[in-house]
Amino acid sequence: MTASTHTAWDGLILGASLATLDAPRGYADISDGALAWRDDRLTFVGPRSELPDAPHRLAREVIETRGWITPGLVDCHTHLVFAGDRAREFEQRLQGASYEEIARAGGGILSTVRATRAADEGELLRQSLPRAHALIADGATTVEIKSGYGLDFDNERKMLRVARRLEQLGISVRTTYLAAHALPPEFAGRGDEYIDAAIEWLGRLHVEGLVDAVDAFCEGIGFTPAQTTRMFQAARALDLPVKLHADQLSDLGGAALAAAFNGLSADHVEHTSLASVRAMALHGTVAVLLPGAFHVLRETKLPPLDAFREHGVPMAVATDCNPGTSPLLSLRHAMQLACTHFRLTPEEALRGATVHAAKALGLHDRGVLRAGARADFVQWNIGHPSELCYWLGGPLATAVHAGGHRVR
Amino acid sequence: MTASTHTAWDGLILGASLATLDAPRGYADISDGALAWRDDRLTFVGPRSELPDAPHRLAREVIETRGWITPGLVDCHTHLVFAGDRAREFEQRLQGASYEEIARAGGGILSTVRATRAADEGELLRQSLPRAHALIADGATTVEIKSGYGLDFDNERKMLRVARRLEQLGISVRTTYLAAHALPPEFAGRGDEYIDAAIEWLGRLHVEGLVDAVDAFCEGIGFTPAQTTRMFQAARALDLPVKLHADQLSDLGGAALAAAFNGLSADHVEHTSLASVRAMALHGTVAVLLPGAFHVLRETKLPPLDAFREHGVPMAVATDCNPGTSPLLSLRHAMQLACTHFRLTPEEALRGATVHAAKALGLHDRGVLRAGARADFVQWNIGHPSELCYWLGGPLATAVHAGGHRVR
Ligand SMILES: [Zn+2]
Ligand SMILES: [Zn+2]
Repeated sequence: MTASTHTAWDGLILGASLATLDAPRGYADISDGALAWRDDRLTFVGPRSELPDAPHRLAREVIETRGWITPGLVDCHTHLVFAGDRAREFEQRLQGASYEEIARAGGGILSTVRATRAADEGELLRQSLPRAHALIADGATTVEIKSGYGLDFDNERKMLRVARRLEQLGISVRTTYLAAHALPPEFAGRGDEYIDAAIEWLGRLHVEGLVDAVDAFCEGIGFTPAQTTRMFQAARALDLPVKLHADQLSDLGGAALAAAFNGLSADHVEHTSLASVRAMALHGTVAVLLPGAFHVLRETKLPPLDAFREHGVPMAVATDCNPGTSPLLSLRHAMQLACTHFRLTPEEALRGATVHAAKALGLHDRGVLRAGARADFVQWNIGHPSELCYWLGGPLATAVHAGGHRVR
Repeated sequence: MTASTHTAWDGLILGASLATLDAPRGYADISDGALAWRDDRLTFVGPRSELPDAPHRLAREVIETRGWITPGLVDCHTHLVFAGDRAREFEQRLQGASYEEIARAGGGILSTVRATRAADEGELLRQSLPRAHALIADGATTVEIKSGYGLDFDNERKMLRVARRLEQLGISVRTTYLAAHALPPEFAGRGDEYIDAAIEWLGRLHVEGLVDAVDAFCEGIGFTPAQTTRMFQAARALDLPVKLHADQLSDLGGAALAAAFNGLSADHVEHTSLASVRAMALHGTVAVLLPGAFHVLRETKLPPLDAFREHGVPMAVATDCNPGTSPLLSLRHAMQLACTHFRLTPEEALRGATVHAAKALGLHDRGVLRAGARADFVQWNIGHPSELCYWLGGPLATAVHAGGHRVR
C-alpha cells in the first residue's frame, strides 16, 4: 500500500481482486484492487480507493479488468532442460514391461543422458523451449532448472547454458548444478571418483557464472550422505547455497543433512523423519513437495505434512518437470495434485508455488504482491483463488507479466 | 486408403504421421501420411506415396507439416453446462469441513442446481463457453453434454438448449437428458412422483429435438433400479437410446440394467459385477471410465478392467466435466489419469477417447481416420501418440479440425 508518486508508472491495472499473499495467513486479498509497476518493480498494491491521484495522471497505461491477480508463480524444482522424452518407456511400463526390461532395452535416466549429450546446444534449447512456454502459459515467471543429464563437464555446462538462455523468454531462471544426479556409465562402480570430478567441474562452471545453487540426489539408488556432504562442502567453499533431493524413497537423513548446511530446501521429503523436520525448522530449510512424481509413481507414503505445519517449516510445491517421473508442464497442475494427494489447502498450494517457492530459491523480492517487489504477476479468469487448484486443465491465465513486461 | 479423385479436395495435409486407429489393435499408424477432406468428410487417408496425383492438382490447399494427426477426440460424458462452480466447497473440504457441514452451508449438487436455475439462457451459455473452448483446445471435436442441474421442465430445457448452442463453436454436441440426476427439493421424499414428472418433460423436450439420449444416476444416493427402469421404458417408447451412471459407489446392477435396454454405455462402473460385464458384452454396451471423479474423490476401487478386456467390452474414457467431482477441462487429462489410476495403456486411452467414445454415443462415422469418416482430426506437436497420455498439461494440439473446418 506504498506509492512512489513522483514519477509516472509504466502500468496500472484496476478492478481485479488481488491475492497479495502479503500476510502470514490467508490470501491477504484486496477487492477492486489497483496494481501498478514501473520498470521491473511493483509501485502500488492496494485498493483502488487508496490511489493517490486520478489513474491517468499516475500511469502511462491504465487497464480496467476483472478476475484475480496473483503473484507470478515460482517453479522452484524442475529438470526441464533435456533432450528426447520417455513417453515410449511410459507406454512400455503400462504394457507390462518391468523396470529391468526397460533398462535392458536402453531406457531409464541414462537414455535421457544419452539424448541430452547427443544434442548440441541449439537443439537442446529448441527441445526445451516448448516446456518453458507451457510453464509460463500457466503462470510461471521464475523457474529453477537443474543440470544432471550431462554428467560430464561439457554437457553439464551445455545444460546450464541452455537454462540461462531461457531467460530470453522474459522470465527469471535460477540454475542448479546437479551433476550428482546419477552415476554416468564411464564412472560405473567409482562413485567417489565421480564426486571428485563433479566437484572440480563445479568450480569451473561457477567461474563462468552458470551456477546459482548446488543439489544432489541422496538416495540408495543415488549418492550416499557422505558423497552428498563432500559436494555440499565444495558448494560452501564457493559460497553457493545448497538444496537436496532428500528422503524420496527412503530415510537417509537427507533433509537434516541439507538443513545442517543451511540448505535452501529439501525436496520430495516423503520419508523425512521428525528429527529432520526439526532440523529444517531450525535452519529455515523449505520442504519442497513434488506431487507429480508421487502421482506418476503411484506412491502412497505421504510427506510429514502435519509435522511441517506444526514446526513452521514452509512448504513449497513444484512441478519437478522431468521426463522420467514427472512429465508435468504446469505448476497449477502440481498445485492441484498437491491438494488431491497431499490434502494441502488451495491457499497452502498457492503459497507453496509463490512465496514459499521463492524462499526455496533464496529469493526475497517476489512471491507476493507488494510495492517494491518484482513486477511478476498473473491475471486469471477466475472468481476465487481456490479455482487455481480446483480446475484440472483449462487456460485460466489471461496475462502473465514478469519484471514488468508481458511474457504471455 | 480410398480416394475420390474426380473433384478437388478442400484440404490436404502432408508429412505428419497418422494414428488412424482404423484396426482392431495398435495405432494403425501411417508415417509420412496424407490426409485430405472435402466438405465435412475425409476423402483420403494413407501414405503420401499412394496419392493418386500431384498434391496441388488434388486439393485447393496443401499443408506440409510434421508431428502426428489423430482422430478428433470424443468426450462422451460431460456435465459442462452449469452455472457457478464449487471451488469454495473444494477448499472447505480441504480445510477440514465435513460433507454434512458443506451441505448445511448450502453446498453440494443442489448449490449447482440453484445457480443453474438462477442463470438465464445467455448467462448459462456465457459461463459454459470457456469450458467448451478448453475441451476443444485439447482436441475435442465431439462433446456429449447432459442436463441434470435444472430438475424442472424449464431449466432442463434451458440446459439442453445451451448445449445445442455450443455447436456454434463448430464441434458436434450430443445432448443427454439427465433429469434423473438428483431429486430437487420440491420433490423431497417423492422420488417416484419426480420420475413421473421427468418422464412427462422428456416427451415434450423430445418433440423439440433437444434429446439425443436418456441417462439416470442409479445409486443409493440417486435413483433406484426400478425408477431407472421406468425412465428407460419411457426412452424406449420414444425410440431414444439410453446410458447410465452405473455402479459408481455400489453395485446395484446398473450396468446390467443399461445393457438390458441395449444401452449405449454404462458409465463409472467401478463396482460392476462380472455378471454385468457379461451382459454389457452381450448387448454391445460400452464401459465409460471416468478417472477424473475417481481422482478427485480419491477412490480406490478399480473398475473390472481385465474383465472388460477379456469379454471384449469396449472401454471409453471421458472427462465427466462437472463442478462437484470432476472439474476436468481436458480430455487428454482424463486419458493421463486413466493411464495412471487405471493402468490403461496409452493406446487404450486414445481408443477410449476416440473410436470407443464415438460408439458410446452411437456414432459410427468418427473416432477413426478413414476416407468417408467425418473430417474431425487433431494435429499434435508430438513425436509419438503415447505422449498424449504422458505429458500432464502443456498445449500439445497445434490445430483442431471439426467437420472439415478449423475450430482451433
Ligand atoms: Zn527432481
Ligand atoms: Zn457424470
